[in-house]
Amino acid sequence: MYVPMLLNDFLDRAVKLYGSKKAVINTDGREYTYSGLNERVNQLSHGLQSLGVQKGDRIAYLAPNTLEMLEGFYGVFQTGAIMVPLNTRLTPEDYLFILNHSESKILVCDQELYHQIAPIREKLQTVESVLIHYADETCEDINYDQWLSGFSTDRFDRPEMDEQDVCSLLYTSGTTGNPKGVMLTHRNNYFHALSVQHHIRVSDKDTLLHILPMFHVNGWGSPFYYTANGATQVMLRKIVPETIMDLVQKHKVSVMHMAPTVLNGLIQYYDQHKPTFEHDVRIVIAGSAPAPAFVRKVEEEIGWEFIQVYGMTETAPLSLFSPIRPHLEEDLTKEQKYRLKAKAGIQMIGCEVKVVNDLGDEVAWNGQEVGEVITRSNSVMKGYWKNEQATMETIQDGWLHTGDMGTVDEYGTVEIVDRKKDVIISGGENISSIEVEGVLYEHPSILEAAVVALPHEKWGETPHAFVVVKEGVVLTEEEVIQFSRSKLAHFKAVTGVTFVEELPKTASGKIQKIHLRNQKWEESGKSKDGRFVN
Amino acid sequence: MYVPMLLNDFLDRAVKLYGSKKAVINTDGREYTYSGLNERVNQLSHGLQSLGVQKGDRIAYLAPNTLEMLEGFYGVFQTGAIMVPLNTRLTPEDYLFILNHSESKILVCDQELYHQIAPIREKLQTVESVLIHYADETCEDINYDQWLSGFSTDRFDRPEMDEQDVCSLLYTSGTTGNPKGVMLTHRNNYFHALSVQHHIRVSDKDTLLHILPMFHVNGWGSPFYYTANGATQVMLRKIVPETIMDLVQKHKVSVMHMAPTVLNGLIQYYDQHKPTFEHDVRIVIAGSAPAPAFVRKVEEEIGWEFIQVYGMTETAPLSLFSPIRPHLEEDLTKEQKYRLKAKAGIQMIGCEVKVVNDLGDEVAWNGQEVGEVITRSNSVMKGYWKNEQATMETIQDGWLHTGDMGTVDEYGTVEIVDRKKDVIISGGENISSIEVEGVLYEHPSILEAAVVALPHEKWGETPHAFVVVKEGVVLTEEEVIQFSRSKLAHFKAVTGVTFVEELPKTASGKIQKIHLRNQKWEESGKSKDGRFVN
Repeated sequence: MYVPMLLNDFLDRAVKLYGSKKAVINTDGREYTYSGLNERVNQLSHGLQSLGVQKGDRIAYLAPNTLEMLEGFYGVFQTGAIMVPLNTRLTPEDYLFILNHSESKILVCDQELYHQIAPIREKLQTVESVLIHYADETCEDINYDQWLSGFSTDRFDRPEMDEQDVCSLLYTSGTTGNPKGVMLTHRNNYFHALSVQHHIRVSDKDTLLHILPMFHVNGWGSPFYYTANGATQVMLRKIVPETIMDLVQKHKVSVMHMAPTVLNGLIQYYDQHKPTFEHDVRIVIAGSAPAPAFVRKVEEEIGWEFIQVYGMTETAPLSLFSPIRPHLEEDLTKEQKYRLKAKAGIQMIGCEVKVVNDLGDEVAWNGQEVGEVITRSNSVMKGYWKNEQATMETIQDGWLHTGDMGTVDEYGTVEIVDRKKDVIISGGENISSIEVEGVLYEHPSILEAAVVALPHEKWGETPHAFVVVKEGVVLTEEEVIQFSRSKLAHFKAVTGVTFVEELPKTASGKIQKIHLRNQKWEESGKSKDGRFVN
Repeated sequence: MYVPMLLNDFLDRAVKLYGSKKAVINTDGREYTYSGLNERVNQLSHGLQSLGVQKGDRIAYLAPNTLEMLEGFYGVFQTGAIMVPLNTRLTPEDYLFILNHSESKILVCDQELYHQIAPIREKLQTVESVLIHYADETCEDINYDQWLSGFSTDRFDRPEMDEQDVCSLLYTSGTTGNPKGVMLTHRNNYFHALSVQHHIRVSDKDTLLHILPMFHVNGWGSPFYYTANGATQVMLRKIVPETIMDLVQKHKVSVMHMAPTVLNGLIQYYDQHKPTFEHDVRIVIAGSAPAPAFVRKVEEEIGWEFIQVYGMTETAPLSLFSPIRPHLEEDLTKEQKYRLKAKAGIQMIGCEVKVVNDLGDEVAWNGQEVGEVITRSNSVMKGYWKNEQATMETIQDGWLHTGDMGTVDEYGTVEIVDRKKDVIISGGENISSIEVEGVLYEHPSILEAAVVALPHEKWGETPHAFVVVKEGVVLTEEEVIQFSRSKLAHFKAVTGVTFVEELPKTASGKIQKIHLRNQKWEESGKSKDGRFVN
């Protein structure tokens, strides 16, 4: 029997088996059961239908992690429409591009983000209606809450859908050119959910705190598999360490997905306040590999289980996770285990992940040879929306080219060493900017660091550090340079430092090195092999 | 990206990530890593190719749970052929029917089972080669071991396959008519594996003891998801409680799937020998719902986790499992929890299961109204091989009709009350034979019991018990009747007892009530509405 894998299955199951269980604890304290959530979802679908929404139409969302954002997923999918969740940290010009490019028919926007839309409102070519979450008195559009309450909570008659229908369009704020719309089908997201839920051991006993924006990478996907399992989902509007720690204790949050920088903030908070947790907590971290000492601190001091994962929007998103496999356990010291847990990891069931050199051959499993990470699975996107060229460049011969450079250790564990574009090529040697940053993070005075390539007369490129120092400490350029020379092969050591107040970051907390690099290259008046041209 | 879900993915992953880990501990003590297992799988595929096997050909297996049986799955699938695993407890006539009906090209047979083939050997119409596992001096066919060693361990070039290709054909020893061949596709088995592995929490830390025959229901499927996770698989040729207990201790077996009657034997062994287990063990039980006291005994006394599941060959096989959902936990007494854990349970992610009355409407969630269990999922078979009629009778309007009768409690938990054909209709009332048996099992002198309908002048039908008494005890018919009257509404109490040495069982340990019933109805010279005509 062929039954199309459709995402609404997940909410249907939760409603049937967990109807009276707490589904959502909203940012404003309102709580909804899965039955209650489903009623709102039905209202939304009926409402969208009344606005003329039909199968295949695009519905854009600009919202933080709220109840209304979560219900958006299922409410939109149920009509057969395509959800276009927008990164909340973009500029009005970005929104203008995305809304027009996606030809979105409806825009659903949180009041607190509407100021990003106002300036471009007149230039929107396809948006017919704007619905405002948490509308205040300035709102001249549709007050979502009032509007929603006007529709029936009855079952919505879904149109016929197939699993290969596109259901979401996620624009990646690429480092060059216009954002690209990642088309994910029901099958992509569904298959991903089946695999990921298993590896990160999601269950009905879980209470998830939605820290990562739902629209973004490691946050994306979570509304599917936590719902399917009947977990409780706590919403979070703004990332504030104290708020997070309070919510963890108050709601006995058992699992959180977050960016390394957010975890960094939580650890600092922990060091200052030493909260204690009496229940099990696991954290799912995507992003650059943390230092083993970082993992040790989380697991031994705070007592949370650390799970490193790897993914990207184009793979729906996760494809690797990093457990300690039992047959390796005996041979490893504690330090080696933390080292292993900090790596991107091994392929999840249903994903194939390889690291290949320029010839397309797998690199040696020696932890040294660097190649590009490529992946093949049912979680890989269908392609980029209206961008055949970019699709063809990214998916080649049935493999998605991630643009991430990695190594593979003797156990087959993948480690990301850099973005392809972030590798520093000095005197013909590849230097991983992440490796250098890892060393800088060991310095007691450094809060955050980013290392980029600077043009260099003799070596071609050389590593340059952007550093944020911890509050109240003083640090000199020379100290940083010497520190890095004491820990690294000299050709890898930084040769200059720029001290900054903060580092530019993406919505998921990833440091945007492209901006730092461009700034420096523009200052130098140079440009090289297209790598630094925005 | 669409990547066909093919079962060889699972072994590929294990080889890549668990290549040096112990994959199989065979019945004869030989151990193989996943790399070693894969070499044998490749040899098998090359060997089959040399015998002219092509995509779509049927390869029949008649073997207990051995290394050679396990490698058969992946070795056959890799060639694109269809595996036809035969129930080891059938008669030569059954094998004759199945081998000819499936048009099997190759028969792979364990030496100890060959005596079941010898009598019909001359009548096999399509079998071109017979390969014998563990061949002894009497073997006149191909000695599998010698034969296998002649082929390359190199990678086998797989033909192009799609996920909707049939990969296995499982003949169900139906209670009426000839066996029917259940066609399962790669997608059916793969999807099932993704869902089940999650709910029964399979991991690379597991050591599975293959108690249930791999060809059969709750055993089927396990070679897929335990392999995908890189678990260690211990083979078992024959079900002997002492052997099982020894293996659990020796290999730190963490998980076993078994029939209730096997668990019954283990509990008796436990009562006599009181073995202790220092590691976690969970058992996955499919079949009739055990008494809550039974679950309590397993969990509290033996210390094993009890997981009830429900399925059938036609659903690849599992679709329900029975956890205690956390939001219900507070309201339940310990006894109620054991009662709940003994039920068939709630639908797994990706499965829809309903209980419907004759009009096709869902029964009330009151634990009383009885209806037929129907299911819809990607794990449901494609159909019956060369039996369009039976397929159409079983799959109607996109739902598989299981022939099992069940109720749904207020929490949405399904309980199987009987096979549709086993329900006893007395004075217009439906009596669940399973409910009556449950009461008989509470009697301290009763080892096993089966209750069937007997013709009755006044009531139409009446419950009659077949009873096996425990060793060394004496029990009278009157005692059994009185005992059942003391525990049940009188119309449900048994009105007669036949004492027997043992009950007829299927390969998975299910009691074949049809035989008991037919025997009695033949004696009575009656037949009714086709239910008892074989």
